[in-house]
Amino acid sequence: MATLTKKRSQKAGLPAGSLVHIGDKKTDRTTIKIIVYNQEMFKEIAFEELGAHVPFLNKDSVAWININGIHDKEIIENIGKLFSLHPLLLEDIMNSDQRPKMDEQEDYLFITLKMLSVEGSPSLIKDDQLSLVLGRGYLISFQEGETDAFSTIRDTIKNGKGRLHRMGPDYLAYSLMDVVVDKYFIVMEKLGEEIEALENELIKNPKQGTLRSINRLKREMIFVRKSTWPLREVIGDLERRGSALVHESTVIYLRDIYDHIVHVIDTTETFRDIIAGMIDIYLSSASNKMNEIMKVLTVIATIFIPLTWIVGIYGMNFDYMPELRARFGYPVIMVIMVAIGFLMVFYFKRKKWF
Amino acid sequence: MATLTKKRSQKAGLPAGSLVHIGDKKTDRTTIKIIVYNQEMFKEIAFEELGAHVPFLNKDSVAWININGIHDKEIIENIGKLFSLHPLLLEDIMNSDQRPKMDEQEDYLFITLKMLSVEGSPSLIKDDQLSLVLGRGYLISFQEGETDAFSTIRDTIKNGKGRLHRMGPDYLAYSLMDVVVDKYFIVMEKLGEEIEALENELIKNPKQGTLRSINRLKREMIFVRKSTWPLREVIGDLERRGSALVHESTVIYLRDIYDHIVHVIDTTETFRDIIAGMIDIYLSSASNKMNEIMKVLTVIATIFIPLTWIVGIYGMNFDYMPELRARFGYPVIMVIMVAIGFLMVFYFKRKKWF
Amino acid sequence: MATLTKKRSQKAGLPAGSLVHIGDKKTDRTTIKIIVYNQEMFKEIAFEELGAHVPFLNKDSVAWININGIHDKEIIENIGKLFSLHPLLLEDIMNSDQRPKMDEQEDYLFITLKMLSVEGSPSLIKDDQLSLVLGRGYLISFQEGETDAFSTIRDTIKNGKGRLHRMGPDYLAYSLMDVVVDKYFIVMEKLGEEIEALENELIKNPKQGTLRSINRLKREMIFVRKSTWPLREVIGDLERRGSALVHESTVIYLRDIYDHIVHVIDTTETFRDIIAGMIDIYLSSASNKMNEIMKVLTVIATIFIPLTWIVGIYGMNFDYMPELRARFGYPVIMVIMVAIGFLMVFYFKRKKWF
Amino acid sequence: MATLTKKRSQKAGLPAGSLVHIGDKKTDRTTIKIIVYNQEMFKEIAFEELGAHVPFLNKDSVAWININGIHDKEIIENIGKLFSLHPLLLEDIMNSDQRPKMDEQEDYLFITLKMLSVEGSPSLIKDDQLSLVLGRGYLISFQEGETDAFSTIRDTIKNGKGRLHRMGPDYLAYSLMDVVVDKYFIVMEKLGEEIEALENELIKNPKQGTLRSINRLKREMIFVRKSTWPLREVIGDLERRGSALVHESTVIYLRDIYDHIVHVIDTTETFRDIIAGMIDIYLSSASNKMNEIMKVLTVIATIFIPLTWIVGIYGMNFDYMPELRARFGYPVIMVIMVAIGFLMVFYFKRKKWF
Amino acid sequence: MATLTKKRSQKAGLPAGSLVHIGDKKTDRTTIKIIVYNQEMFKEIAFEELGAHVPFLNKDSVAWININGIHDKEIIENIGKLFSLHPLLLEDIMNSDQRPKMDEQEDYLFITLKMLSVEGSPSLIKDDQLSLVLGRGYLISFQEGETDAFSTIRDTIKNGKGRLHRMGPDYLAYSLMDVVVDKYFIVMEKLGEEIEALENELIKNPKQGTLRSINRLKREMIFVRKSTWPLREVIGDLERRGSALVHESTVIYLRDIYDHIVHVIDTTETFRDIIAGMIDIYLSSASNKMNEIMKVLTVIATIFIPLTWIVGIYGMNFDYMPELRARFGYPVIMVIMVAIGFLMVFYFKRKKWF
Repeated sequence: MATLTKKRSQKAGLPAGSLVHIGDKKTDRTTIKIIVYNQEMFKEIAFEELGAHVPFLNKDSVAWININGIHDKEIIENIGKLFSLHPLLLEDIMNSDQRPKMDEQEDYLFITLKMLSVEGSPSLIKDDQLSLVLGRGYLISFQEGETDAFSTIRDTIKNGKGRLHRMGPDYLAYSLMDVVVDKYFIVMEKLGEEIEALENELIKNPKQGTLRSINRLKREMIFVRKSTWPLREVIGDLERRGSALVHESTVIYLRDIYDHIVHVIDTTETFRDIIAGMIDIYLSSASNKMNEIMKVLTVIATIFIPLTWIVGIYGMNFDYMPELRARFGYPVIMVIMVAIGFLMVFYFKRKKWF
Repeated sequence: MATLTKKRSQKAGLPAGSLVHIGDKKTDRTTIKIIVYNQEMFKEIAFEELGAHVPFLNKDSVAWININGIHDKEIIENIGKLFSLHPLLLEDIMNSDQRPKMDEQEDYLFITLKMLSVEGSPSLIKDDQLSLVLGRGYLISFQEGETDAFSTIRDTIKNGKGRLHRMGPDYLAYSLMDVVVDKYFIVMEKLGEEIEALENELIKNPKQGTLRSINRLKREMIFVRKSTWPLREVIGDLERRGSALVHESTVIYLRDIYDHIVHVIDTTETFRDIIAGMIDIYLSSASNKMNEIMKVLTVIATIFIPLTWIVGIYGMNFDYMPELRARFGYPVIMVIMVAIGFLMVFYFKRKKWF
Repeated sequence: MATLTKKRSQKAGLPAGSLVHIGDKKTDRTTIKIIVYNQEMFKEIAFEELGAHVPFLNKDSVAWININGIHDKEIIENIGKLFSLHPLLLEDIMNSDQRPKMDEQEDYLFITLKMLSVEGSPSLIKDDQLSLVLGRGYLISFQEGETDAFSTIRDTIKNGKGRLHRMGPDYLAYSLMDVVVDKYFIVMEKLGEEIEALENELIKNPKQGTLRSINRLKREMIFVRKSTWPLREVIGDLERRGSALVHESTVIYLRDIYDHIVHVIDTTETFRDIIAGMIDIYLSSASNKMNEIMKVLTVIATIFIPLTWIVGIYGMNFDYMPELRARFGYPVIMVIMVAIGFLMVFYFKRKKWF
Repeated sequence: MATLTKKRSQKAGLPAGSLVHIGDKKTDRTTIKIIVYNQEMFKEIAFEELGAHVPFLNKDSVAWININGIHDKEIIENIGKLFSLHPLLLEDIMNSDQRPKMDEQEDYLFITLKMLSVEGSPSLIKDDQLSLVLGRGYLISFQEGETDAFSTIRDTIKNGKGRLHRMGPDYLAYSLMDVVVDKYFIVMEKLGEEIEALENELIKNPKQGTLRSINRLKREMIFVRKSTWPLREVIGDLERRGSALVHESTVIYLRDIYDHIVHVIDTTETFRDIIAGMIDIYLSSASNKMNEIMKVLTVIATIFIPLTWIVGIYGMNFDYMPELRARFGYPVIMVIMVAIGFLMVFYFKRKKWF
Repeated sequence: MATLTKKRSQKAGLPAGSLVHIGDKKTDRTTIKIIVYNQEMFKEIAFEELGAHVPFLNKDSVAWININGIHDKEIIENIGKLFSLHPLLLEDIMNSDQRPKMDEQEDYLFITLKMLSVEGSPSLIKDDQLSLVLGRGYLISFQEGETDAFSTIRDTIKNGKGRLHRMGPDYLAYSLMDVVVDKYFIVMEKLGEEIEALENELIKNPKQGTLRSINRLKREMIFVRKSTWPLREVIGDLERRGSALVHESTVIYLRDIYDHIVHVIDTTETFRDIIAGMIDIYLSSASNKMNEIMKVLTVIATIFIPLTWIVGIYGMNFDYMPELRARFGYPVIMVIMVAIGFLMVFYFKRKKWF
């Protein structure tokens, strides 16, 4: 969330389908991991073994090609040719400034979504784009970040436990998306904790920085919403319309993800409302502090300004001021002034000023 | 409403269908109550009698299995096997951080919704999740809280009064949901009373704490809305589309519940608007108080500062100041000062400052 | 609008269809007026003559049973049996905390809506619930308030003037609803007048009470909207879908009512916007008043505080202060102070402070 | 826009279809202009010639009956009988407090919309209601205002230029509506100019009156929106659904009007946003002015209050105050005070207070 | 964005289809460039060669007629005749105060949209209207600005690289629109940079001008949104419904543009939210500054006003004031005053005022 927009201007004017990487380069080398598995077997294949035509597809097994690092134009183009993907799709994969979306073609289904993670304190949300190409017998996943978020899934397949190794690439795609959505919950949890910390700060000691923190949270919330709202449509669409590439038994899992996303969105809305209330409290506490300050000033000034006038009177140098000659002039005037002072204090007490 | 989000992070990375209890553990022991009834008979069955296949189902009677305590993975799994429920569904039952939703499967209908109750003063809204599985001839209800909110319903069935014991499990499900929705009204009543109390406080003696109370109410309102909005969709859907598991004569009752939920939602919206107006009044009363303080300060300062200057003049030590020698210099200056004071007061009166 | 919510908690836990009166009891005795009419005849019937089966129905005449007072469970139940109405419907009739709604059954059409009236100054909006059961050849109308709003309609039928006595019970139902909607316009007129009065007050002399009045109006607006929005749906639905119980020639009249309700809703929206603007003006006028006060204080203090310092200087008791001995020391210092005063005034004039 | 609502209460209780004029009476005499034309001929007919049945209808010519002045019940009734119009429709024509709407009957199409004009400075928006009855071979147009906005259209027909005299009454109706919508643009232009003038005032010299002007503009915007939003639906509906009374070649012209109305609505929305921003600036400039005032007060008070204390010290009458006797006591104290004064000024300069 | 509305009033009263140029005249001469191309050939044609009927249409080639300068009525009329375009369409082309829209006729498809560019600092958004007429075998593009934004496209065709010269006029239309949408991203990037600059200014040194800059950005955002929202509908419509004039293989490119526009709209919404937060911070920082000022005043006044009273006491001229005679009266009183001063400072320190 360092900058508000990613630099797309470099691409302006280029014809459609031009492959330009947009976004931060997060890794130096592109890593490609390919595994082929079904209920009976599991093997890893080097990318170089692939050759011109992909031998292991359209069979009784699932091939998962996972690409870390999407900034290398050549590799993306190679994969595009190998699986005959549309140039626009490759463009979308390399452009990480992309809204979550789905595109169904005859032979494959393209889904792109945002992975969010949260770091540091105050928290900073980072995003990475995950693009999935789901075809008959294979799934290709693209992301830029080096961290292999999906290693547990690979392990699960390898160990042959759970449902994963018995089911098709659609279930694998679901599993990846499930990991992504689970991360949303972690982000929301972190933001929720920060909101609660800020609420405490607001009550105990609000300062100018508090408002800025509140606004930072608001911006991160906008960021989460921007990633989740379109995803909701994507998954909702897929679940409702179905697809030849998604097995019927997987649809119930998609619905589950859909429910989770809606839950995340609900939470962002709740957080927004809470943040709006916090801003109200902040602004009102600032004006309350002002009231406190003004009360102090007013009390002091209102008590002492009249008294100062009185002492001024008896500092005048008139020749004929009988009080000045009086034996008890001084103590009487002092008593009168103390009395006025106490009356003032009493008046302010009744007005509940302190 | 202690924390904003429930800890779901513990579940991140686990494969779909993993049974993990999310939410507060509210009871130690899981209690299972099973009753079987129809128009002629009523009997209670111990859970242990159930065996591997459920003997009393698909018949002319209704079986109601009520489970209090959803944190025990084993029991939930057992029930899942017994009624061949989908693992995702069991996951949803154990995860109390769930949006109200409905899921129709071939053999059963799954509904999950929130029970709200209100406690203490200032009120604290508590929620518990009620999950219903409506099958042919049976209804399973899951909740975590120990309080048996449904004992009156069980009594009604036992006594054979009313419509309940003559009708199927769908009507029983309706009756449970009706109890839940009735509780919403109680919550709204309590919140309405607190709003009115706060409105009085606002008019009589607004303080910083008032705004915090208003915001607390706003948050509880958000909480209620989060529980009721999705439920409206759920019930509305069920009523419109119908289901093989819901008898036609029950649909009119669902519509009745639907109307009640819409009514609750309407009330939350009204409350929101009222609360927004209260915040306006609060902020304006703070600035009015400031005006009052400033007026006091200004009146006092404006009257006495010029007078203090005058007495200062005659406190100067110039050798040649004829007034100082004058016989009536002192009384004349005093009269002038009093006159100035009264003019000032008169001026402020005309400006309606006090 | 005395309280925000009507006490429904008394009903919680009761089975569906339990008849409990919810709302204020506005009349002691229940009055039932029955008239039967068609183009040729008009007769009044006592309720007691009705007997077990209703003799005058399903014929060439229209029977209008009007019930004032819905708190008497027994009477409502009797009528329910006589016309074989669903228990839930009777429950709705007795529960005056109801959203406007329509329910079509095979033999009758049930519509419930809110009658609004406005009283006193500042205006207080009162509501009464009107429930209509439109069957073949009859119309039953229920309300709680004693005031017979429909006497002019009864007279029109009796006198055989207008369209009413030539047409069926659906047109009678329309006529009753038309009376109700006409009352909405009266309420809006009254509110509009109050808004204009408040706008004048705002410009001339805004006080803390003004904001409270504005908020009261806002709440009444919310109240009107709550009654009219759902009614719009109800009538719009009826008009679009039609019904076997509503003659085609009556549909154009329903559309007319529909337009009127939309007009009322439009006006509430306009009023809301105007009220929002009034709150802005109020808050800004409060801060303007503060500015005025501060200006007075600042002008006075800024002029006299430096002058007081000057006179203080010449009140010092140093032995060697040549000015004090000077022949024209005093008048020169006085002239200097007056000059400083005028310079200050000139400065503030140029800054347009007064 | 003098009053917020038009008096409709006089109509409450009257049966549907009662003809009561609601709105301001803008003209004394009702003027009726009838012209009949087609590609070959053009003639004017006096209303009195019409007789009981309309001779010139349903032929190869277009008859345009234009009525100025809708407050005369008798004339409206006559026309109603002549063209067998529904009583409700006549009621709508006479009631100028009407939402723009369309009603299609078998033999005619009824459209009512608002003509807006803007007058004076500050601008005042005036409205007049235009009702159109489009039948086979004829168009009746009703308005109340005397100003004949449609004279240019009549001239165009007379001169036989343009498309008008070759086409049917539907195109004539379109032409009238086009004139009305063109007037909306003029109103928006005027409002836009006023907004710009107010923006300048805001930057140069905001005063309390500025906010009231902003709010007046906001209200006029609401007024325009209220007239245009429903018209958009009306025209959009007509264009989409078509009508037996509207020739296919006219539909493209309706779409053109539709686009214009949407454009007007867009502009009102833009103006709303701009006005909201202006209110922010106004409120902030008020608080900035306050800051300026407070700074002046604080600078003066903070410099002179300590200095006054110092001179007070040396005005004390203690017997033993060695400084008073010192030869350079007075000049030294003066230098110290000037130094303190400059330090203060320097401090405020660094704090960027002036 | 110099003025809020473009002068349309000059057109009021003219019959539909009157050709009047509305908008700024940006170029003196109208330039027409015609190229005809297909996969094999490329030739440029002078407008004068066109003759009465267009010879090169409906063939295996694409003709692109690009018109720069739309203020010349005659030329537009000529082209209209040549391609038999509807007069309303020509009117729309010449009226640059137009909402983006699409109109499908039997023989051609008409699309009009806004080109945005951003200039200077602070940025000023300029718009130009691009109208496209897509027919069988030809595309006509109209804009007013002289800058040939499409020269790269012409070069691409000439060089025979890329997909362009192999595909029909629909793909050419897409390419032009793609250029336009790419420019939106550049505009958003520029605005994003300005928002970030303003955020820094807000934190470091907010001034009255900052708020005006924020509001200027808000207005430019409204301007962008007004251009993009309707375009989204236009492209979405075209993509969904398809058209005989748009080849199936082009539809996927339209979807790509659609996604880009939605992305731009998303970004404007994000920017709106951020700007709203900035206004909050601005207003709160103004009130914080006030608090700072008030604190300084209060601290100074509260310390010195009581002290001034004390020195005033010992400046009184009473004959009997024993303290005045005391040997250590003066130093004792000084110590007392310093002590009071330190106590006050300590009190304010504890209250965290400085």
